[in-house]
Amino acid sequence: MKIVCEKEKLLKGINSVINGVSSKTTMPVLEGILIETNDNEIKLTTYDLEIGIEYIIECNVEKQGNTVVNAIMFSEIIRKLPDTEIKITLNENNLLEIECEGSLYKLATMNPDEFPELPKINIDNSIEIEQNLLKNMIRKTIFAVSNEENRPIFTGCLFEIKDNKLNVVAVDGYRLALKTNLLNSKSKDFHAVIPGKTLNEINKIILDSFDTIKVGISKNQALFEMENCKIVTRLLDGEFLNYNNAIPSQWETRIRVNKNNLQNCFERIILISASTIEKEKRYPVKISIEIGKVTISCTNQTGDAKEEIYVSTEGKNLESGFNPRYFLDALKVIEDEEVFIEFGTNISPCIIRPIDGEEYAYMILPIRMKD
Amino acid sequence: MKIVCEKEKLLKGINSVINGVSSKTTMPVLEGILIETNDNEIKLTTYDLEIGIEYIIECNVEKQGNTVVNAIMFSEIIRKLPDTEIKITLNENNLLEIECEGSLYKLATMNPDEFPELPKINIDNSIEIEQNLLKNMIRKTIFAVSNEENRPIFTGCLFEIKDNKLNVVAVDGYRLALKTNLLNSKSKDFHAVIPGKTLNEINKIILDSFDTIKVGISKNQALFEMENCKIVTRLLDGEFLNYNNAIPSQWETRIRVNKNNLQNCFERIILISASTIEKEKRYPVKISIEIGKVTISCTNQTGDAKEEIYVSTEGKNLESGFNPRYFLDALKVIEDEEVFIEFGTNISPCIIRPIDGEEYAYMILPIRMKD
Repeated sequence: MKIVCEKEKLLKGINSVINGVSSKTTMPVLEGILIETNDNEIKLTTYDLEIGIEYIIECNVEKQGNTVVNAIMFSEIIRKLPDTEIKITLNENNLLEIECEGSLYKLATMNPDEFPELPKINIDNSIEIEQNLLKNMIRKTIFAVSNEENRPIFTGCLFEIKDNKLNVVAVDGYRLALKTNLLNSKSKDFHAVIPGKTLNEINKIILDSFDTIKVGISKNQALFEMENCKIVTRLLDGEFLNYNNAIPSQWETRIRVNKNNLQNCFERIILISASTIEKEKRYPVKISIEIGKVTISCTNQTGDAKEEIYVSTEGKNLESGFNPRYFLDALKVIEDEEVFIEFGTNISPCIIRPIDGEEYAYMILPIRMKD
Repeated sequence: MKIVCEKEKLLKGINSVINGVSSKTTMPVLEGILIETNDNEIKLTTYDLEIGIEYIIECNVEKQGNTVVNAIMFSEIIRKLPDTEIKITLNENNLLEIECEGSLYKLATMNPDEFPELPKINIDNSIEIEQNLLKNMIRKTIFAVSNEENRPIFTGCLFEIKDNKLNVVAVDGYRLALKTNLLNSKSKDFHAVIPGKTLNEINKIILDSFDTIKVGISKNQALFEMENCKIVTRLLDGEFLNYNNAIPSQWETRIRVNKNNLQNCFERIILISASTIEKEKRYPVKISIEIGKVTISCTNQTGDAKEEIYVSTEGKNLESGFNPRYFLDALKVIEDEEVFIEFGTNISPCIIRPIDGEEYAYMILPIRMKD
């Protein structure tokens, strides 16, 4: 193998595939990048047996060939080389020679035949979506994905195509995040649950651009396709929550509040509420709603905290306990100036919604307060 | 105690003293900030029994009093409050009430009588120096301070006033860093060794400004005085290295090299040389000097690396082993475009010096290479 490639192009490819490298593996070959030549391009591949990433780079291939090289070492060396052409050669001793100006590095390689093949996918359904939109939808829901492996289905986000809308939903038993967007083109209804880990990696790779990404779904796999880059991931198996039934549509109490003011209050009060180490990590604060005013308060060994905000209120007075962390996670990703928050009784969840439309809903379950 | 203070002024004071808070202590009061009123100002004090910091803030004192409050909690709450006036009151239950717009926080306090007094200092010698200059001199030497507690004197930097110059020197047994600056005003010769830990804290507090700082030395203590802020630290006891005798003044081989080019070479080659885990952490690279060329190379299980730079050389050819980390530490803080590097035999140290003048010298001891 012998190629000559611009550093910048090569590094862009490496940066995309490096997220698919296995960090904990008993198969050393999975710590590597598979480099394969094909006419006048090279394909970089990484695969951790859950997520596989391929990236194609056009370059000058002087001699065809394949090899696997340690991903971290290869990426660090390329990153630090000067911004110019790099010559990469697999020599007769199976060392990968990297030459650039006065620098010559020779890295040990692994057998490309040992690199596992990425799963083949027969796409049943697919949509096309702008990359920045997908990135945004992931960012606004992924924090609510469950970390608990005992119900694996909730460690992923539901992607649901319904009535030409894409709904992304995450739920962890204490709260739910829903983000909705209209699709530009018509699509058949379908749904799939994509692992949170994959979505985190995808969000590192996709750009804040209007370029589209194609999301294709087969029975057990999803395929994300961009220019030069393909990502394959397994899907999570099982029945996701029927989220439409889970979100109450009626309220007893509703407030309309400035998003930033409320976020600032929670950011301060969590300093007190989270300052004592509780096994259950519930850190509750009490939310009290009277006409025209919300009071958020908590008391523990560290001290007392009370925050008052003047807001417009509708319906009954209310007193209920909540984890401020869940409010903060949701408020941080909301870009609106104001939001509605809807409450039921003091044992019902509350819902953060936009003033207009149905673009998102964040549901938070209450905590029973100790008296 | 009852005070009203602008958030910004209070936070500036807190940010200065917070570095003196003890992180590991059996005395809870040392995790606190002592707040004392005095007419129309408050004094914030922190002390970890090695470094003591005092900061004076002018504000509206409505009722005199003293208290100690947990530093982290106090600082975090003040930091997150809106940018306006904050009212702070010690109430009858010894809770510190912090009021600001709709927020009311009450924090547990500690007995101010239990807060240890900072050492009194009788200054024997002192200098005044611009803060940005001191900051720079610390930054350019502190990395060479020893971490090894078995020779405590080398865990500090020597501050030597001699012939109206300030020399700051750090040495750890493998390398030495010397930074020199002329003083603006005449001063008596004296010297003291200031703990590296203190200098790190001081560098967080002092500004990149032309404002001066006064450095005063007593037998066992040093005092750093700025507007509003005083820092007291113990000195290290013992005989520092006679660094003038340690730095060779003759050379057998000398190169003149572009600083950035050399730094880039070391940044790449350390990827290979530091990639194998050696107990001694010596990671040697071989430096070979022939007429007009320096070659830096290393070989281990990860691979081979070779870097060639064309430079101007004087004197004999040379081959010697060095730890690239020590070169990088020194090159990173040098701002010159070019430097001289002087070598003796392959068992003598090398010295990085400026092309003109004597503003700095970085000495690095060689490593015997395995063949």
